[in-house]
Amino acid sequence: MKGVFAAVLTPMRDDLSVDRAAYAEHCRRLLDEGCHGLGIFGTTGEANSLAVSERVEAWEKLVEDGIPADVLLPGTGACALPDAVTLAREALAVGAPGVLALPPFYYKGVSDDGLFRFFAELIERVGDDRLRLFLYHIPPMAQVGFTPELIGRLLDAYPGVVAGTKDSAGDAERIERLCKEFPQLTVFAGSERFLLDTLRWGGDGCISATCNVTAAQSRRVYDLWAAGDAGADAEQASLTETRGFLEGFPPIPALKAIMRVRTGDAGWANLRPPLDALDDERAQAVAARL
Amino acid sequence: MKGVFAAVLTPMRDDLSVDRAAYAEHCRRLLDEGCHGLGIFGTTGEANSLAVSERVEAWEKLVEDGIPADVLLPGTGACALPDAVTLAREALAVGAPGVLALPPFYYKGVSDDGLFRFFAELIERVGDDRLRLFLYHIPPMAQVGFTPELIGRLLDAYPGVVAGTKDSAGDAERIERLCKEFPQLTVFAGSERFLLDTLRWGGDGCISATCNVTAAQSRRVYDLWAAGDAGADAEQASLTETRGFLEGFPPIPALKAIMRVRTGDAGWANLRPPLDALDDERAQAVAARL
Repeated sequence: MKGVFAAVLTPMRDDLSVDRAAYAEHCRRLLDEGCHGLGIFGTTGEANSLAVSERVEAWEKLVEDGIPADVLLPGTGACALPDAVTLAREALAVGAPGVLALPPFYYKGVSDDGLFRFFAELIERVGDDRLRLFLYHIPPMAQVGFTPELIGRLLDAYPGVVAGTKDSAGDAERIERLCKEFPQLTVFAGSERFLLDTLRWGGDGCISATCNVTAAQSRRVYDLWAAGDAGADAEQASLTETRGFLEGFPPIPALKAIMRVRTGDAGWANLRPPLDALDDERAQAVAARL
Repeated sequence: MKGVFAAVLTPMRDDLSVDRAAYAEHCRRLLDEGCHGLGIFGTTGEANSLAVSERVEAWEKLVEDGIPADVLLPGTGACALPDAVTLAREALAVGAPGVLALPPFYYKGVSDDGLFRFFAELIERVGDDRLRLFLYHIPPMAQVGFTPELIGRLLDAYPGVVAGTKDSAGDAERIERLCKEFPQLTVFAGSERFLLDTLRWGGDGCISATCNVTAAQSRRVYDLWAAGDAGADAEQASLTETRGFLEGFPPIPALKAIMRVRTGDAGWANLRPPLDALDDERAQAVAARL
């Protein structure tokens, strides 16, 4: 798994259930726009606002609806070990080549030993050689994160299984360090702001919320880099400007607002609480200015 | 519901499943030692480290095993609205007179509007007049919390249903404010350190992790206050000293270590990751000094 991945939004009906048709349509559009893969049901996908059974059902339907399983990187993060095990097993059953796993995020100030034990138990309880674990580092939300030392311990203990990371700390130096210290690790930046740098450091791409609306441009950066890097800086600068504009808004509400304006589907205004939709005026403004 | 409630530890077997027999025994002991009620499956009970189905099964067995349902205040906190609904419904089905509900705690920096909408949806989806909701404010863990303004809005919108709060912010002034501003709200301090003050401010008691080992002494403070307050200050000072000693240790590991030494049951050393047990030497030391 490498390249440009959108952290896919989850469209919902007015009763807050997943809108199956709109979801498959959005995934297809993102692939058409150039995404190499789809990070489904992560932070942007409101995964933790859905029950385990709702998540699994949505993945199954997505594949039934024709989205190829081999581009999917489902989020399987959960505070409870049995939930994390269930989600990882079901992701494998659906045919996803990897899973993106949060650390357990309720207790704060936990030790690397405790987190190591969580992932060791997870890997052993899943008990499937096909498991490819991507460590989801997003301290602004989870608060709990992966130290480079913990990543190293997990790589040593479970080589091949611990496959990669998505780094959403917003810290370029950390991404560079991970790329260089762990060449065997697939490193995705959590923002397309760092896409070109990450590729040049030996990393693999980005998985980003804003790729729901910047997929085509992000893909151009990737392709210019892959073709020898000529012109990549200018394209990255333009992409970074777009990203910078989007960073001025609450990300999930703003991205759903843009999709609402672009598609004309009012359902895109639905977010599970505690997230709020942007009001109409702000929604129109963000979409127009983008 | 009022008085001294332990935030009950959850004993686990070596495979990390709930130890049914040890759990009922521990709950019985806490009631014998003077607890008016039992705050089961909150932070101290490692609730968020268990799947929804595990939590519900443990409550059902506890009642089957003879613990009276009418002393139970089960934690029903979850990030996902459908999980919070399921847990609240099942708590009612078991016969619990109230539920202790965390705010959804994955997304940070969320608005009072978004949290209001979460609890409004929860109450409406549970759809049961028997529901009595206790708002669980514990910002050191959940990060997300209840502003007094939000509590007021919920009380206005759902009088009778929004019944109380457990306040674990560690802020005496806030507890005093809630007691005085919302006389219709049952206010439990999250620490027996504030027990006597809370009662004098018009509040109702405490729900505390350390009451797993201070139940008898906490009850003496309550009874002295109820009998006219004579001697309550001295007993509270002694209780506060005990609490202060315990605050020097990671709470859940230390409390399980004390139970292990007291009961001789090695299973008390089991914690779900990411929490770690205290090592043997420290476990013996904390139990001996207590």
